[in-house]
Amino acid sequence: MKSETISLEHGAGGEVMQALIGEIILKNFRNKSAGSIGLESLDDGSTVRLENFNSASELVLTTDSHVITPAFFPDTNIGRLAVAGTINDLTVMGARPLALTCAIIVPEGFSLKEFEEIIKTMDETAAEVGVPIITGDTKTMEKTALDSIILNTAGLGITDNPIRDSGLKSGDKILVTGTIGDHGISLMAHREGFDFDTELVSDSAPLWKLIEPLLKLRTPQGEPVITAMKDPTRGGLANSLNEMAAKSRAGILIEEDWIPFNPAVSAACEMLGLDPLEVANEGKAIIGVKSGFEEEVISILRQHPYGRNATVIGEVTADNKGEVILRNRFGGMRYVDVPAGDPIPRVC
Amino acid sequence: MKSETISLEHGAGGEVMQALIGEIILKNFRNKSAGSIGLESLDDGSTVRLENFNSASELVLTTDSHVITPAFFPDTNIGRLAVAGTINDLTVMGARPLALTCAIIVPEGFSLKEFEEIIKTMDETAAEVGVPIITGDTKTMEKTALDSIILNTAGLGITDNPIRDSGLKSGDKILVTGTIGDHGISLMAHREGFDFDTELVSDSAPLWKLIEPLLKLRTPQGEPVITAMKDPTRGGLANSLNEMAAKSRAGILIEEDWIPFNPAVSAACEMLGLDPLEVANEGKAIIGVKSGFEEEVISILRQHPYGRNATVIGEVTADNKGEVILRNRFGGMRYVDVPAGDPIPRVC
Repeated sequence: MKSETISLEHGAGGEVMQALIGEIILKNFRNKSAGSIGLESLDDGSTVRLENFNSASELVLTTDSHVITPAFFPDTNIGRLAVAGTINDLTVMGARPLALTCAIIVPEGFSLKEFEEIIKTMDETAAEVGVPIITGDTKTMEKTALDSIILNTAGLGITDNPIRDSGLKSGDKILVTGTIGDHGISLMAHREGFDFDTELVSDSAPLWKLIEPLLKLRTPQGEPVITAMKDPTRGGLANSLNEMAAKSRAGILIEEDWIPFNPAVSAACEMLGLDPLEVANEGKAIIGVKSGFEEEVISILRQHPYGRNATVIGEVTADNKGEVILRNRFGGMRYVDVPAGDPIPRVC
Repeated sequence: MKSETISLEHGAGGEVMQALIGEIILKNFRNKSAGSIGLESLDDGSTVRLENFNSASELVLTTDSHVITPAFFPDTNIGRLAVAGTINDLTVMGARPLALTCAIIVPEGFSLKEFEEIIKTMDETAAEVGVPIITGDTKTMEKTALDSIILNTAGLGITDNPIRDSGLKSGDKILVTGTIGDHGISLMAHREGFDFDTELVSDSAPLWKLIEPLLKLRTPQGEPVITAMKDPTRGGLANSLNEMAAKSRAGILIEEDWIPFNPAVSAACEMLGLDPLEVANEGKAIIGVKSGFEEEVISILRQHPYGRNATVIGEVTADNKGEVILRNRFGGMRYVDVPAGDPIPRVC
């Protein structure tokens, strides 16, 4: 850790944050596991194994704080982001959401009308997947001490087959459930006051109902068809794919032309000089699927509104272990690096 | 809700916060229960009932954000407060802590040395009760947007007998586990730069090991000896006792002279013009005990360092339902009101 104070990059989801977590948090927390997946896995959640539980199931626990600014953006607000974010962390662990917490920190002077709108949005988002919000906390801060509302949600889920980032095997297909970059780019465009002809809105969405049918799929040999899953939030596709490749000790080859983009996102990225692969998504999942089952998985995903642009974007390779390679339409290849920081601060 | 924006009182743990929670949060969250105790109970946590669980146990879920400033205070830091706070919320629900989450929000420019010190303190506090910290999140914010580090912890526990705020019955004894007002007054004195002859430090402490032996106690009829429990944090004894009285539809009569105070707290309260009953405690529990068992409970509590000043402070009455009455040494009585706000902002 070279610098002596925290910088914004320490929270950007890239390699600086990984260093902070590894060198300070993981090093000092001695007791960090309560089941088969603990903090050191740095997965989307961790598991808790219960005594006296007459099944192979484990509980899954996860948490996220949301500090996005502004709190309202096209065309939803921080409430949807927070609830969907925690539902999605449970979902990509293969866990059915059982209950959420809701901890709010709000600066004095914040509009009560907007506060109520955020609460209503949290309720509507949770209702999409039928998960109750059962406990919470409310704190206030001086407006000189905090500039906007902060939400923390923690989630409890249950699974009989936790899905790890590290589950990819050579030959697996890599799928995404829809277009990439919508959340980060729409937020940036909104902040900068850009106006695009086409609709450019956050993709923030709770994915449990989309993903649930996939969790039951088994190969004829009885193995799960879904081998790994991650939601590409901070650091975007670039960060999530690198994490999956490194943890799985496998290579990932992505076909650039196969990645689905909203045309407005492509246009905005060009204008703003941003790499859409490094931009946060809030309603998408990256899914590792056993080869031969990708068509079945895509057909299931496309039946749900949140999956209608689901598609294969690449595959897992035996070589280039731990690396993500992007191949363009002309066959040219380049490494996709772990982003150093986030191109868009306070994106979630 | 008369005002149109959030004020500091909305997070002060008193009646303004209760109105916000009731009129906005509870009203708009439609699905708020996953077990026998849901959000609408406004207890220290809520329960989750599992299918396929071959016991009468329920899970308990709780969450708290900590925004205390400064982050270091006599003679510990926000890390202890956050971990102890969530362990204590599980504890006063009668739940054994199984796992904690740790979500950190830190402003740029925050010292990495202090950051590591806070992480170490979280680890040490969790180690006191053997609970793992299994999942987390790290966000950064600009120093113009946030003035100090914020920690959110959520906790998962398990209990076969959830203890509710509403469990008090006429005749029960009211106990506290130690001196009152230490956390809030020591923080205030530290902020104001007061120097007292005697040691004046936060009481922040994880109470699970202190309380655990009490949870097994049963009357000859097989009923739990502990009828209700609460940790008097924001809003202090005044707020917690009022909540217990209102939810239990019972009166509480407190003997002023029986409340244990650190002499430095009494002196500071006089100097600062504060009511110690409205001041936050972070390592104390209020316990309702079936009459006749209070000596046994006190003898158990006093065996533990965090309970050596445990004592009876009053009893539950059939009259004055929902009210808390304080009787002084001369027999004079006054109502203890729900605090309107917190005398010490950002106390936890």
